[in-house]
Amino acid sequence: MQLCSSISLTAKVPVRVKSEYKNSTTLNDFSSNLVVPIPKWSQKTINLPPQKRGCHLITSKILKEIQQDLNGFQCGLAHLFLHHTSASLTINENYDYDVRDDTETFLNRIVPEGPSAPWKHTLEGPDDMPAHIKSSMFGCALMIPISNGKLNMGTWQGIWLCEHRDYPTSRTVVVTLNGI
Amino acid sequence: MQLCSSISLTAKVPVRVKSEYKNSTTLNDFSSNLVVPIPKWSQKTINLPPQKRGCHLITSKILKEIQQDLNGFQCGLAHLFLHHTSASLTINENYDYDVRDDTETFLNRIVPEGPSAPWKHTLEGPDDMPAHIKSSMFGCALMIPISNGKLNMGTWQGIWLCEHRDYPTSRTVVVTLNGI
Amino acid sequence: MQLCSSISLTAKVPVRVKSEYKNSTTLNDFSSNLVVPIPKWSQKTINLPPQKRGCHLITSKILKEIQQDLNGFQCGLAHLFLHHTSASLTINENYDYDVRDDTETFLNRIVPEGPSAPWKHTLEGPDDMPAHIKSSMFGCALMIPISNGKLNMGTWQGIWLCEHRDYPTSRTVVVTLNGI
Repeated sequence: MQLCSSISLTAKVPVRVKSEYKNSTTLNDFSSNLVVPIPKWSQKTINLPPQKRGCHLITSKILKEIQQDLNGFQCGLAHLFLHHTSASLTINENYDYDVRDDTETFLNRIVPEGPSAPWKHTLEGPDDMPAHIKSSMFGCALMIPISNGKLNMGTWQGIWLCEHRDYPTSRTVVVTLNGI
Repeated sequence: MQLCSSISLTAKVPVRVKSEYKNSTTLNDFSSNLVVPIPKWSQKTINLPPQKRGCHLITSKILKEIQQDLNGFQCGLAHLFLHHTSASLTINENYDYDVRDDTETFLNRIVPEGPSAPWKHTLEGPDDMPAHIKSSMFGCALMIPISNGKLNMGTWQGIWLCEHRDYPTSRTVVVTLNGI
Repeated sequence: MQLCSSISLTAKVPVRVKSEYKNSTTLNDFSSNLVVPIPKWSQKTINLPPQKRGCHLITSKILKEIQQDLNGFQCGLAHLFLHHTSASLTINENYDYDVRDDTETFLNRIVPEGPSAPWKHTLEGPDDMPAHIKSSMFGCALMIPISNGKLNMGTWQGIWLCEHRDYPTSRTVVVTLNGI
């Protein structure tokens, strides 16, 4: 296993602080010239523009907002948290639009909607209760590894926002980066 | 992006340790008067009382157990991990009881149960195999951002425990807090 | 709540660095003899051998790759991230093979496959679009607490790799460990 911070300090000498990366802090043991990185945290709230009902690839939108900060992390984790209960975040295929479209087809087949649906919660419209269910099926959060300043995803993986309501609204995502 | 630890230290002077928050540790460069927070970890095992089959809002139960520790984190992540394979954790609507009830209706419709169900694993009762499936559908873990000593969820979001077994039992959740 | 790093330093004395564990770094305030652990990160890419379509218990395979590093963490989180969109990771029952088999039965019942399925994305075979949907249903990532050098899971919990394609291929998992 590659230790992101492969440190083995034994010298009992005063520690000094210096900046290795932009916005990062490390402890430098000047007697041995080893650098001990102190993990960093950053957090940002992103507002995604309204999107029509269905599954949408948002990898580039997210990266545009966080790439500059990602650059400062050699190793870490990126957490995305959607502030809503009628939309969801998932990771899936990043190339063929049909995959997103078929996934929306699946969700609509599996969760009944309309007059024959068994829901009691109907005050906010026929699409609301199905949206809540879909949100829990796919979830509202993602955690993605960071390696060498980049999201470490597979070749075909992308970040999807799945909008489950008929009426498009802006969606809020809290992104938390943590690492060294 | 708001860096939770916006540090830019260049001075090569001895570092000193002081306590900025209760239970937290920071490195203070006294030559520049900047404070470098060292990330903290805390972990707690919570026992939730038995709940009947269905979806239950447990945000306040969880907060009661962790709020005091949450106060010490300006920025971080809270991880909740359920120790069971026949219940689940999810984030969904926190207001209308009907949403929880409709979600339970959905789960029971989508996962067959009883004599006509196709399951081989029936030794632990007709509700056991359906419970395992539902547990993987919603998942047994949550990760929620922490901001300014609070869980940073949307206005309508709450933490649900979904009990998938007929016979209520106590459920164990491991909560891990990490941040600065 | 058990604070993993229960520190309360007030002395303004020089900080020294020493190694408490293998690969770990701590700050030692020699005036009070308290040790402040600096969180560690490690990351490893694991290649899992091809498995036939279905659900597979892979806990021991994963532990074999990470146990040595896990030993160095008293408290933390382990993140597993699958690099694929046609397989999934989930946590479920670790004992009876029938539970894995029944879960595969469920997935195949709920996601239509073959000539009568409504999918537009069919170029990669009839099992491909169903595989993408199943991947988002169960998800491609897990986060598990670490306590005292071990994955802190429940008695009956295990890590499953669910292979959703007919033709077995090697699968890549990025494991990220973070803690003290």
